[in-house]
Parts: sequence; C-alpha cells; structure tokens
Amino acid sequence: MSRVRRVASFLIKRLLLGRPLRSGQPRTALLPKRLALPVFASDPLSSVAYATQEMLLVLSVGGLSLLYLTPWLACAVILLMTVVVISYRQVVRAYPEGGGSYQVVSTNLGPSTGLAVGAALLVDYVLTVAVSVASGVANIVSAVPALHGYRVGLAVALVAALTLVNLRGVRESGRAFAAPTYLFVGGILLMCVTGLIRWALGHAPTAESAQYSLVQTAPDAGLAGAALVMLVLRAFSSGCTALTGVEAISNGVPAFREPKSRNAATTLAAMAALAISMFAGITVLAMIARVHVAADSCDLAGFPDCRNTPQLTVIAQLAAAVFGADGLGFFYIQAVTALVLILAANTAFNGFPPLASLLARRRYLPRQFSTRGDRLVFSNGIVLLAAAAGVLLWAFDASVSALIHLYILGVFTSFTLSQAGMVRHWNHRLDQERDPATRKRQHAARAVNALGAVVTGGVLVVVLITKFTQGAWLTVLAALALWTVMKSIHRHYAAVTEELAVDGRKAHLEELRLTHAVIPVANLDAPTLRSLAYAEALRPDAIQAVTVAVDHDEAQALNDEWGHSGLAIPLQTLASPYREITRPLVGYVRKLSSPHGVIAVLLPQFMTGRWWEQMLHNRSTLWLQLRLAFVPGVMVVTVPWHLASAAHHTPHRTAYAPGAVRRGHNVISSSPDTR
Amino acid sequence: MSRVRRVASFLIKRLLLGRPLRSGQPRTALLPKRLALPVFASDPLSSVAYATQEMLLVLSVGGLSLLYLTPWLACAVILLMTVVVISYRQVVRAYPEGGGSYQVVSTNLGPSTGLAVGAALLVDYVLTVAVSVASGVANIVSAVPALHGYRVGLAVALVAALTLVNLRGVRESGRAFAAPTYLFVGGILLMCVTGLIRWALGHAPTAESAQYSLVQTAPDAGLAGAALVMLVLRAFSSGCTALTGVEAISNGVPAFREPKSRNAATTLAAMAALAISMFAGITVLAMIARVHVAADSCDLAGFPDCRNTPQLTVIAQLAAAVFGADGLGFFYIQAVTALVLILAANTAFNGFPPLASLLARRRYLPRQFSTRGDRLVFSNGIVLLAAAAGVLLWAFDASVSALIHLYILGVFTSFTLSQAGMVRHWNHRLDQERDPATRKRQHAARAVNALGAVVTGGVLVVVLITKFTQGAWLTVLAALALWTVMKSIHRHYAAVTEELAVDGRKAHLEELRLTHAVIPVANLDAPTLRSLAYAEALRPDAIQAVTVAVDHDEAQALNDEWGHSGLAIPLQTLASPYREITRPLVGYVRKLSSPHGVIAVLLPQFMTGRWWEQMLHNRSTLWLQLRLAFVPGVMVVTVPWHLASAAHHTPHRTAYAPGAVRRGHNVISSSPDTR
Repeated sequence: MSRVRRVASFLIKRLLLGRPLRSGQPRTALLPKRLALPVFASDPLSSVAYATQEMLLVLSVGGLSLLYLTPWLACAVILLMTVVVISYRQVVRAYPEGGGSYQVVSTNLGPSTGLAVGAALLVDYVLTVAVSVASGVANIVSAVPALHGYRVGLAVALVAALTLVNLRGVRESGRAFAAPTYLFVGGILLMCVTGLIRWALGHAPTAESAQYSLVQTAPDAGLAGAALVMLVLRAFSSGCTALTGVEAISNGVPAFREPKSRNAATTLAAMAALAISMFAGITVLAMIARVHVAADSCDLAGFPDCRNTPQLTVIAQLAAAVFGADGLGFFYIQAVTALVLILAANTAFNGFPPLASLLARRRYLPRQFSTRGDRLVFSNGIVLLAAAAGVLLWAFDASVSALIHLYILGVFTSFTLSQAGMVRHWNHRLDQERDPATRKRQHAARAVNALGAVVTGGVLVVVLITKFTQGAWLTVLAALALWTVMKSIHRHYAAVTEELAVDGRKAHLEELRLTHAVIPVANLDAPTLRSLAYAEALRPDAIQAVTVAVDHDEAQALNDEWGHSGLAIPLQTLASPYREITRPLVGYVRKLSSPHGVIAVLLPQFMTGRWWEQMLHNRSTLWLQLRLAFVPGVMVVTVPWHLASAAHHTPHRTAYAPGAVRRGHNVISSSPDTR
Repeated sequence: MSRVRRVASFLIKRLLLGRPLRSGQPRTALLPKRLALPVFASDPLSSVAYATQEMLLVLSVGGLSLLYLTPWLACAVILLMTVVVISYRQVVRAYPEGGGSYQVVSTNLGPSTGLAVGAALLVDYVLTVAVSVASGVANIVSAVPALHGYRVGLAVALVAALTLVNLRGVRESGRAFAAPTYLFVGGILLMCVTGLIRWALGHAPTAESAQYSLVQTAPDAGLAGAALVMLVLRAFSSGCTALTGVEAISNGVPAFREPKSRNAATTLAAMAALAISMFAGITVLAMIARVHVAADSCDLAGFPDCRNTPQLTVIAQLAAAVFGADGLGFFYIQAVTALVLILAANTAFNGFPPLASLLARRRYLPRQFSTRGDRLVFSNGIVLLAAAAGVLLWAFDASVSALIHLYILGVFTSFTLSQAGMVRHWNHRLDQERDPATRKRQHAARAVNALGAVVTGGVLVVVLITKFTQGAWLTVLAALALWTVMKSIHRHYAAVTEELAVDGRKAHLEELRLTHAVIPVANLDAPTLRSLAYAEALRPDAIQAVTVAVDHDEAQALNDEWGHSGLAIPLQTLASPYREITRPLVGYVRKLSSPHGVIAVLLPQFMTGRWWEQMLHNRSTLWLQLRLAFVPGVMVVTVPWHLASAAHHTPHRTAYAPGAVRRGHNVISSSPDTR
C-alpha cells in the first residue's frame, strides 16, 4: 500500500472514529436506576411499537371476526411478560456479577448447552437490529411518505450510522438514552390516556383505515379447526415480540449502583410496568379506533393508490386518530418512536460484541473477536453484527412483517434454558443450605424459575411450530450452523494448544546448522544480487544459485551472462522437461535436506505501487513458498524489493528501499566455503 | 492442501487432460491443401449458416417488401468477400512466415496500432466462440425441439467440452476436421442444387414459415429516408458475418506444405469459391422457399404456440423444405451444420491462445499467458477464452441474433488495418526495388491492398454506425479497455526491467552482516522454540526474543514462564498502550537497522489441514510481514509448522514435519554473542 493512501485512510479513520484510546482509560460511571432503565430497557419498551401491529396483522388474515380475539391474546402476552420478569428478578439476585443467559446456562447446564444459548443469542442480536431498524424506518415513512421508495437504503444507512457511533465507543450513552426513552414512554402513555378519555366522553378516536375493509387473503373465508388454532397461535407468537430484550437488564447488573441486585430487580419491575401499560394501552386503543392493518396496502379495499402509498404503522394510525394527522402530536409520536427503536437496535450493539468477545476468549470464536480496537470497543464484533443485520434488511426489503417471523426464537430459547439453568442452580444451593428460612426462600425461587421455564418452554414450542415455515427455519439453521462452527473452532484451538505445548521448565533448543542457502534465479538482476548478498550474510555452509531451464535458449543465455559476471557463486541449471518451475526446485531443495541441517531458500518479494501491478509479480514465488513449507527443515526467506513504480506513491522511498544496491564502495565478495 | 486431496485432484486432471508432455515432443505434421482447407476454413465456411439468416432477420423488421432487397445485399457481400480474399492472397505471399494481422500491422504501422488489432482480434475470438456455439445450438434445437429450454446449458457445456479437448491438445486435428467440413459443404451444396432443380421443374420447395406472415414490429409500417437506409445497411452488416475467419489461413501459412505461400493462396481461393457458392445458394433458395424469420417466433402471425416452440434456423427450414421435415436429409444437414459450427468455435481456440502468448512474450499480457502447460498448449489463454465466451453466452441467453451485433467489428478493424499495413509494406518495398518487372507487380499488389483497405474501411464505418447502439458499443469498450490494460502492463514491465537491470560484467555483491535475528513471541510453545533454534543456526550478532504486551497480565505470565525456562536468550517486552501488535514490533525492528546490517525476523507459518482452519491462524503474521517489507534491510524468515490436524489429511506427516522438536538428544544452547 502506498504511503499517501495509508495516510489518507488513517486520517479518514481518525475523523470518523476519533483518536485511539490508551488501555485503562476510565470507563463509564455506574448508573443510577433512572439512567439504567432507558439504557437497558429501550429494546423491550420499544417493542410495543410493533408487537400489537404484528399480532393484528396475523389475525387480519383470518378476517375481521378474529380481531375480537385481540384482547385475549394481549392478556396472554401480558401474563407471560409478568412470569418472565419475575423469573429474571431471581436471576438478577442470584448473579450480581451479571447473569447473562450464556453464563447462567454454561454454569448450570454445561458448556454445550451454554453454547447453544450463545448461538441463539448472537442470531437474535442480529435480528434485534434488523427488526428495530425496519420498524423505525416504517415509522419514519409513516410520517414522511415521500421516503417510501428509499426504505432499504434508509435502513442500511441507519445501521451504518449505528456502526460508526459504536466503533467510536459511546461513553455518555446513559444520558443520550434517557431523554428519547422517557419522551417515548410519556408520549405513548399520553396518547393512550387522551384516546381513552375521548372514548369515555363519547368522542372515540377513529383510525383512517377503519373506513377500508380488509380484502380477504386467506383461500377460504371461514377458517376452522387446526388452521384457525394455528393462526391464533401465530398471532400470539407475533405478540410475544413485546418480550424481547428483557434479559438486557440481567446482563447489565454490574453497571448498576449499589445495591446492584436490588436496584436491577426494581428497574426490571419498573420496566415491566411501563411495557405492560403501553402494550395494553396501544392494544385497547387500536380496538377502539378500529385500526385495520394488512401485509400490503393493496389488501385494504378502497385504499388509495395502493401500489405507491405506504401503509401507516399502528402507532402512526393511533397518533393520527388521537392528535390529528397534521398535528404536532402526530409528528412528536413518530419522531420519538423512530428514535427509541433505533436506540433499541443500539442495545444489540452493546450486547453482541461483548458476548462474541467472551466466546472468543473461551476459544469458540476466532481470536480477533476478543480484542478491543483503537477505541477500546470490540470492533470486529460490531462490524460483523452490522454486516449481518444489513444483509438481512436488504434481503427482506426492510419489512418488519417478514423479519418478525425470524425473531424471538432465540429469545425464547435463551429464556427457557436460562430458567431451567436457574432451577439447577437452586437445586445445587439447596443441597448445601441448612438454614430453614433460607431454604424456604430458595424453594420459592426455584418454583418461580420452574414456572418460568415451563411457560417460556411452552411458548418456544408454539413459536417454533407456528413460525417455522414462515421463515423461522432460517433462524434455526443459522443458530445450528453457528453452534457447529463454534464447536469446531473450539476443538481446533484446543488441539493446537495441546500440540504446541512445551514444558516451560525444560525448554530445549535443538542445535542446528544452516547447511545451504538456495537462491532460485530467473534473471541476473538487482534483486538476485541482493538475494546473494543476503545469503552471504547468513553465512551458510554453501550457497546454491539455481535456475530452472523451462526454455533451453533462455537458460543458456543466463548461464553465459552469469559466467561473464565474475560472481564467485556458480549457477546450477535444473532441467524441466515438463516446463514446471516449482517441482524441480522443491525436488532439488528436498535432496539437500539433512537431519540436523536447516536450508534457507531466498525468494524476492516485489512490492508494487498499484494494486493491479501486484498481480503481475510474485505468482510463482507464492506457489513455491507454499510447496517449500512441506519440505522438512526449510525456512523461506523473503527479500523485499520495492519497485520504482511504487516510489511514485511512497514519498519517502529512500527510507524504505535499502540503497537499491549500494554501489561504489562494494567489492565482489563470496563466502569462502561456497561449493 | 492435504495430500489426499492433492493426489485426487492430480488424478482427475490426468484423467481429463492426459499425461504431461515433454518439451520438444513432435508436433503436427505439415498439412496438404485438402486438410488445410477444413482446418483453417471451418469458420468462414460455417458462417454461411447464420449470415443469410441474420440478414433476412434485420430486413424483416422493415416488412415483407424489403425482403426483395436480399439478392442485392447478398451480391454486395459476395463482392466484398472477393475483394478481401484477393487482398489476403497478397498478404499470404508477402508473409510466408504467417502474416497474422497483428504481425503485419505491428511491423508496418507501429506497435500501438498493432496492439489495437491485437485487442480487436482477442475480443473477436471470444465472439467467434460465442456466435458459432450459439448458432450450433440453434441448429441442434431446430432438429430436437425438446432441447429448447436447455439452450444456454447446452452452449456452456459445448464450450466446456471444447476447452477440455484443447487443454489436452489436439494433435490429429487435421483429419478430425476434414470429414465434418467436407460433409457440411457437400450437404449444403447438394441441398441447394436439389432445391434449384425442383424449382426449375416447377416444384419449388416451400418453407413451412411461408404460411405465417410477419407481425410488423417496427413502430410505423412505412419506413422511409434515413431509417430505411439504416435498416438496409444494418442487414448488410449482418450479412458480412460471412467474412469472419478469412484471415485464419493467412495466420496458418507455416503449417502448409511447400510451396507454402502458393498453396495457402490456392486454398484461400478455394475457400472463397466454396463460401460464395454456399452463401449464394442458401440466399437464393431462401427467396424461392419464401423463408420467414423473426427475432421471436411470436413475431410470426399464426405460428403455433409461439412461447414454447423454437423457431427453426434458415438452414433447418430449407433442409425441411427440400428433404422433408422428417427425412434423413434434414437430420443430416442439421447434424453436419452443428458439427461444423462447433469446429468453427474450435478455430478460435487455435487462434486466441497463440496470439495471447505472442502478446505476453512481447510483455503486453501477464507472463502466465506465454508459457505452455502440461500438454504443451497455452492453457491460460484457453481457459480465459472459454470463460469469456461462456459468460457472453450466459449473458446473452445463447441468442445468435443478440450476439451477432457485437461481432465482426473486430474482424473489419483488423481487415482494414492489415490492408493499410500492406500498402505501407509495398511502399517500403517499392523504395528499395529497382527491377521494373518486380516494381510493376508490387504496384499492382499495392493497388489491390489499397482497394481492400478502402472497401473494408468503408464497411467498418457502416458496421460501427449501424451496430453501435445494438450492442457493438460493448465490443468497442471491451477492445479499448483491453488495449489500455495491455499498454499499462507493457509500460510496467518495461519500467521494471529497466529498474532491475544490472551490468552483468560488473556484478557487485555488497558485504552485509546479519546483525540481529528478531523472534516475536506470543507464547512459549514448540514453534517458538523452533524459531529460536533456527535463529541460532543463522548465527547473527544478536538474537532478540520480543513480546508485545497487549494485555498486561498475560505479558507478565509469559515473562515469568520464560524466566523459569532456562532459555539463555532473554525476552524483551514491548509496551502497546493502544493494543496494537504490528506497530510496536515494526518500530522496534526499525530501530535495530543499520546501513550495512541485515535483520532477520522469524515468523511461524502454521499449515493447517482444513481450509477454514487457515483463517484461524497467520492473520497477524501476514500483516506483520507486509509491514516489515517496508523496513530497510529486513528479511522475513518464515518457519513452517504443520499443525497435527493437518496430519489427519497428510498421510506422510513424519516426512513433512521435521521432528516436531526432536527431543532427547538436545541440550539447551545459546549463541555466545547473544546480548
């Protein structure tokens, strides 16, 4: 790479990411509850922006009559959330050092099951980014329909922006998160209360979509039996997306102020109260305002210009119904909803890289994920997460309804397994505990976690069955593949460590002799002379310059030139009847090898200025190097040579190219022991 | 790569391509005229299979009335061919050593113009393969309509088969070519004569398509003025495809028996006579049988099931009309037509690789194109040609009508420039010639070539104008790009040669000292010990083992272990506050460098058994090696280490991994001059 370009890329990197940070520079202060809530809960709170909508959407397929099931499904989701939150309050108390599901399951159910949770969580973090950003974009488009055609571009740009922010490393994130989250919660609750008051006063708000009826999309209107059950359960599964992100608080216990566990448990409860209020409020209001949603605006009979007009999100429809479609209230709700959804995506950026780093430190992922970059963040994890989410958004056209089916499978896998792990944890504690009061508390805690495990396990099965063919198979496949890959990487690293281990207290160095230095020669040129000079500096027993005679005339010409050069080292010619270069040379070197001898093969490495020029050089060298690696006792010595064309790009060429053959004061020399 | 896999891939290669051939094994014998004609003329002869058809197709766009212009256009094409063949007879006489257009133009009009011809010809060879194979497939599909849906696959498979045959190297090609070509010529002429006799007897053969009228596809039926002229000229351009491949004979003069030039000139004349007869015969017969062609079978009113039924080629329509659609004659004509078209594609395989090799030897293309492979053929050129043609066939859906517009631009560029070059050639000869009789002959030859240059130049302009927007811009762009790339490569190679040149008679070797051997250490493991042993074998003034402290605790642990190891070489620790590995090491090495000192940096290179394992190793090593190449006076020494997992795949591991630290008889040693 040229120096100019390196400097430019360095400047761009610094401009975007800021100056590098020294190891050990102070990190974020501990969070009080009022800041911890928005930092850790923006994901579960924001998911009310799509949970109701996707539930309604699935029910709509079955026709208007099914919409009356909505309150019952909402109640089921709320009940489920209560159970999960109570369970996680136990986790927070039991693991004040941050009881991420991966940790809890690894400790209690063994590393393989833990790894399954790890794989599920990694996949789910990707989906959190994709779904949250897609939903954020949908809410932006609801407010500014002109952006409808740029959905995917907008989504990818948002992911890119999040990536940059996270690569810089956000230090003041607490405060930055607080305002939008509270403004969102306040706005949604205000909207719900206003709507309910208007309804109580007899002026019920009505969504614009209430006037359009649903175009029946199911093949036969009257769904019955298994199909009906399936549809209702699928709607329930979609509603369960309201639960995503609950475990973020349990991961983040160490960031809380003392008493950490108690504060975290309180924050969990507060989060649950807010999430449940908002979810219930939005669902009730959607029923009152008779919101109609469909997968495509063309599924609504009478919808104007269904091809080019985006459908509004449920939040947007409600805000328009309550505050008026041109009112300040409408734009306020849309703005804070979009903002909080993007913050929710950001929580995945806070979750994925440390988990990947932990897995890498435990040797389940390549080492590169374990190291912090310039700005003390796990750069590789951030980039991988962003890339995966970007591809998903692009592949699924930034559609929430499409992406939602891939989601929550991982969440419920980790819910179920971590609750099961907690049951194991309490069993273990009960075995050691004698104090009756403590034992009673532990018994109660175990019951709570067992209930949580059974309930979330049941939901996991429901989600798996109802969503599998809708796209969840992709999630299962991805998590399985990831699990297998991580297993293989772990096995590989373990085998290598064992293989390379030496007993440090009895380290031996074998006494070896450099018997030969071999210099393959194609032309008698400056790099060859430098290689010869370097070879002499190594003081081997013998120096062998060899050329491969692919073309008889050329080889003869080189031999003649060599003979007239006055070089003391003779040139040997290897026959190559099949016009190969590598094979005769490797064979030659192999014949020279001896048990306690080492052979150095010197190969020129040309450094070029332009990328395409690189393709014109070093081809045979690379191949030769690979082949020589299989010959015992051979070290390959690369002798760099900077081509002058590279100098056009590297201003300080003199500093780089060591006196391109420092002439004048040199004499022809040759090592006396050259054969 | 594992040994098992290497052996397997070797066996597959040998099975497909045969055993390697020694340099200098006997090549093809010289060709008598009766074999030279089919070998070199299958391309121009086979092009009658599509020339008439594509001419009719273009005229059809203007409506039925325009079809009556066909005989006039055919006459123009025949006249043009006569002029070109007479011109090339001069070339053959003037360049008995094989007057390829590239040679003629380079010699007479300078290397840059020659290179333009080279680029045009390379592009045209690709199109020869694409068009010939596409037309061959169209004739196969005409006989076996069931293959209609597999056109592209069939075309690509044929290209692959040609590639394999050519990679094997066809030695008996003369005889293999003779039969199909003569059977084709005989069949076509017989068909024309039979058809004409039936017409003379009043039983004119009638094509099945005569019953379907053309669906008017031009926007307004009555074309007039410029648009009409354009259409007619475009039809003429399409007809000119009959001329492709004429220059093959002039390239092949050295392969003729003595007297080479005369035999080649005679063969050229014979080829022209046959091509003109067939072209005229097919065109006349097509008029008599009222053949209708259209770009798509749906453009023919009344054509049955136009979506799924392929249109027949003109050859197929005529054969069906003359011999009956189920007759043996029909299938015979289709079979030999397809066969001869595929042989025509093969002539490009004989032309492209030697031209690429010539350009590579003159340093316009990467060296790899100049060398012959196992089987003495220019393998890289063959593969490149096949890949390019395959991509074109795939991109253009193996449609002759689409590909034809890209074609012949290169042919006419080379015609025009080589005739112009010949004029220059005669001028030069006239300057030196005094004998009046010879001068007179040279004057006449110059006149012929001048006429050829003017006529083909005119056609070139016509082709360029009428075909540019139809796709020929792609050809122009490709040839221009190729020309620019070849120019750049040439400049680069020339600069490098000049830069690396040394005066062989005054070759100096600088006297250098190996001052330091630097061993970057991450762990105290077996590869580190091997690197230390190798470093001692190099006998440098000092050995420096250094570690970079990315993590303070890890660095401390390594230092403790090293201290207890009893190794005489001390370990130095480099601080890395920004968690970088490369920069501190490169800085350290840079500080050690001295004007007449060389530094060896020893890096382990891990060889793994499975491809994905490679990604888990050598990452930082590769980066370090690249950066160290910029430090003056540094040689990078790679110390191969075969991971045991590689041994699962390499049966002879013991032969490859040099005594993975041969323990037992070793003593701890350290070079006395270690600081």
